[in-house]
Amino acid sequence: MPIVKYIPVNAPPPSLQDNSADIDRLKNALRPATSSALVVPFAQMSNVAASFRQAKFSGTAVVNEAVGHLELVDFIREPAPLAAMALDLGTTHLEASLLDLTNRKPLARADRENSQLQFGEDVLSRIHYAARPSGLANLHDAIIADINYLAADLAVQAGLPSAAIRALSVSGNPTMIHFFLKLNPANICREPYIPVLNAPDLYHAADLGLCLHPAAPVFVLPGVGSYFGGDLIAGILASGLDENENICMLIDVGTNAEVVLGNKDWLIACAGAAGPALEGGVARMGMRAGPGAIEHIRIKPGSLLMSYETVEGQPACGLCGSGIIDLVASLYLAGIIDLRGKFRPGSDGRLHETPTGLNYTVVPAADAANNRAIELEQVDLDALMRSKAAMYAVLTTLISQVGLSFADLGKIYVSGTFGRHIDPAQAVTLGMLPDLPIKTYVPIGNSSLAGAEKALLGSRDRQRCRQIMQKITYIELNVNQEFMMRFSGAKFIPHTDGSLFPSVPIMDA
Amino acid sequence: MPIVKYIPVNAPPPSLQDNSADIDRLKNALRPATSSALVVPFAQMSNVAASFRQAKFSGTAVVNEAVGHLELVDFIREPAPLAAMALDLGTTHLEASLLDLTNRKPLARADRENSQLQFGEDVLSRIHYAARPSGLANLHDAIIADINYLAADLAVQAGLPSAAIRALSVSGNPTMIHFFLKLNPANICREPYIPVLNAPDLYHAADLGLCLHPAAPVFVLPGVGSYFGGDLIAGILASGLDENENICMLIDVGTNAEVVLGNKDWLIACAGAAGPALEGGVARMGMRAGPGAIEHIRIKPGSLLMSYETVEGQPACGLCGSGIIDLVASLYLAGIIDLRGKFRPGSDGRLHETPTGLNYTVVPAADAANNRAIELEQVDLDALMRSKAAMYAVLTTLISQVGLSFADLGKIYVSGTFGRHIDPAQAVTLGMLPDLPIKTYVPIGNSSLAGAEKALLGSRDRQRCRQIMQKITYIELNVNQEFMMRFSGAKFIPHTDGSLFPSVPIMDA
Repeated sequence: MPIVKYIPVNAPPPSLQDNSADIDRLKNALRPATSSALVVPFAQMSNVAASFRQAKFSGTAVVNEAVGHLELVDFIREPAPLAAMALDLGTTHLEASLLDLTNRKPLARADRENSQLQFGEDVLSRIHYAARPSGLANLHDAIIADINYLAADLAVQAGLPSAAIRALSVSGNPTMIHFFLKLNPANICREPYIPVLNAPDLYHAADLGLCLHPAAPVFVLPGVGSYFGGDLIAGILASGLDENENICMLIDVGTNAEVVLGNKDWLIACAGAAGPALEGGVARMGMRAGPGAIEHIRIKPGSLLMSYETVEGQPACGLCGSGIIDLVASLYLAGIIDLRGKFRPGSDGRLHETPTGLNYTVVPAADAANNRAIELEQVDLDALMRSKAAMYAVLTTLISQVGLSFADLGKIYVSGTFGRHIDPAQAVTLGMLPDLPIKTYVPIGNSSLAGAEKALLGSRDRQRCRQIMQKITYIELNVNQEFMMRFSGAKFIPHTDGSLFPSVPIMDA
Repeated sequence: MPIVKYIPVNAPPPSLQDNSADIDRLKNALRPATSSALVVPFAQMSNVAASFRQAKFSGTAVVNEAVGHLELVDFIREPAPLAAMALDLGTTHLEASLLDLTNRKPLARADRENSQLQFGEDVLSRIHYAARPSGLANLHDAIIADINYLAADLAVQAGLPSAAIRALSVSGNPTMIHFFLKLNPANICREPYIPVLNAPDLYHAADLGLCLHPAAPVFVLPGVGSYFGGDLIAGILASGLDENENICMLIDVGTNAEVVLGNKDWLIACAGAAGPALEGGVARMGMRAGPGAIEHIRIKPGSLLMSYETVEGQPACGLCGSGIIDLVASLYLAGIIDLRGKFRPGSDGRLHETPTGLNYTVVPAADAANNRAIELEQVDLDALMRSKAAMYAVLTTLISQVGLSFADLGKIYVSGTFGRHIDPAQAVTLGMLPDLPIKTYVPIGNSSLAGAEKALLGSRDRQRCRQIMQKITYIELNVNQEFMMRFSGAKFIPHTDGSLFPSVPIMDA
């Protein structure tokens, strides 16, 4: 069943012969339609009883799933849309959707920057900030305020009050979940990397200060380790990796590069928290795939003519993840950068010296939004090289752990902020993804949000989260020597061992 | 199991090889000792995790029973007494005890007048008061303040902080339970007499504003109808009526006269809310069995010499329930009142005329505490006659409903405020209780409190409450013609039909 459901009730009115109490009468009427014990939370009791009586004992009960029992939280005359919110709680960005659980249809979608950015750019700096007086409270309050803002936005779009949002499902990395639940994250980043909590219970919106229906159940997707969170469990849920006969892979490139490998019988995972994260590495020049972001780019080898497309065709104001990969792969294929990822001086008129080294002008100020030129610096390129090397090292470390090769894989699902609009061919060119037939790669969008939505809709999928969590073997790359060796080997385009990438031309200097 | 229990925990400390999260580690360690799913309430989570870590993963977990699951609410290094509070929530008086659930031993006892008396003397006047603006809130706040006062009193006696009280069990009549749970009692006193709730779920102390441990489970004994509450279910629990092979009777004389009849196979009950209540009828001159209350009294027929005993031998300041019954029975046997319950003018020098009729001086001002004479007026006597008639009518109505006679009864358990120190022989003389061998009557003290204590100690007894509630047949005397006829017949001493009371002399005028 969905995490909240409507149950129609048509109870006989009380009489001297049938004088059970109002709440008992309502529970009795619901008994045939419910399998577990039914509890009315204290805060909702008066309202449930009064509404049941006002409706003359006929209408619709609102029943929440809870651990080992059900909760009867409201009684309404006419069923409105049964709105439930799914949330991808990202380190830099929050993305949310509103579903009608009665027909599984989307009602609205919204997104927002994470206000915690004011306290630190990345997870680690926020963990340090959390140790200050009021630090954790500030982080918690900021994220709750963001979610309330998103909820209000979604509700307005759907023409409902925020209090009509009757459930919330949240997926995020372990640190973000700690901030959300106001738990001390201090031990997440210290060996042996222990979170306070991996498998949250169900909470109530009111407990957390969320402005939804106060009794709305809050389902938090469980995590596996300090660097493997509910966002990736959500990805497994959304991709169906854990139910597939064939061995497949899921690559989620958000703040970390996280990878899962397996099928219906086994799952193994690791996260590239050791290497520089892809998202972090390109943060300075990158942007999300919003209006004006360059999402595709080509440079014609020979003429070096450049063409690009921006999101919604707006004037260019930055590069989103897919644009950066396209750009660097094109620069390589056009001979503007070498296989170490360094600009070749004089190879293109767009290159110019600056005090910190060579810069490449992607879009000159005159053509760009706000007259601010879009530049690619050598340091950006270096960061991307480290990131792509980390990505490939993660993939190869994982596949070698189980004695397989990439050719054994059915599908590779590519998810996450960075992978959303990625062109796998370009990523292969860079040596970031293995050189496989392009149809092996399946982009699945924001699988963290898609998994959170799935969790709202079915109890089997909520149970699947726990099963995945228990089934998965997690390799901590922080302590893996093999990973560091593979990381060094992957710091070339496409690789120090070119034979691993037969489809990529070697652009020798 | 008791409603809260301690479970010793000795978990392995986390390592890179065993890196489960703190809360997950604690839950895992508890799994062998728990049969249901374990939930950590949001409000307790940070504290539980921090305490577990501070204690180096060894100590004692505090686990509450909840519907369909268990709650893990605290972690302590050294187990202190596991204090739980039982409460008899009376209309005029609250009585409470504190138990140590680890060894079932009493830690403290306390009592207090119900502060709701300021809003109305009896249940009906308070129900009317509750309908005013803020009325229900005032009644609720008053009772919660009383309970917090009692909890503080008990805690101080036991040398514990109030927050160390980890559970509360409450028995009371349906109206008092409505005030306690802040539920609208308006329909309790209107045909068809429907409470909001008969079978409460478990609540948390913090939800109700109780100053105990915030996660302390609050168990409220269920009721059966508007005039048959958890106090009587508690009495059945304490007397064991529902488990006895023999047919027995339970008489609980508090604000109402409530009676249950049955054995392990069936239970039938009624409440004398239709007639004047015994407690109400003597409230003006009566008092509780505190220091100075006359609890036993004798008048020598012939000499009319009076002797009495007060509680703790203090100077007399009033009559408690047993004293009033003794007094009126003695007045009858000494020929000072006739079989209609009227003073016989000139029969005793203690009688004197007043503008409202004859008065009987029980204790002259000179001998009484505070120099205030203790008097019995004709109106008091009339009220007692109605009360005793109601009591007997309730008993005979009930026994005739099942085609039995009083001689079929194994035991008659006498409970409640009024019955606490009652002398059954004197009550028989008045025709209030049936003329049976005195050993049939078993005084069982405050069975409402005793039942509440039992409910704290064992899950089987908590389940028994629900079973009793479902098993019991409740006769509404408000709509019973037979009761009104029997009531009229019982308005004589001992009865219009003297043959029903062969042991009582007929003191004819």
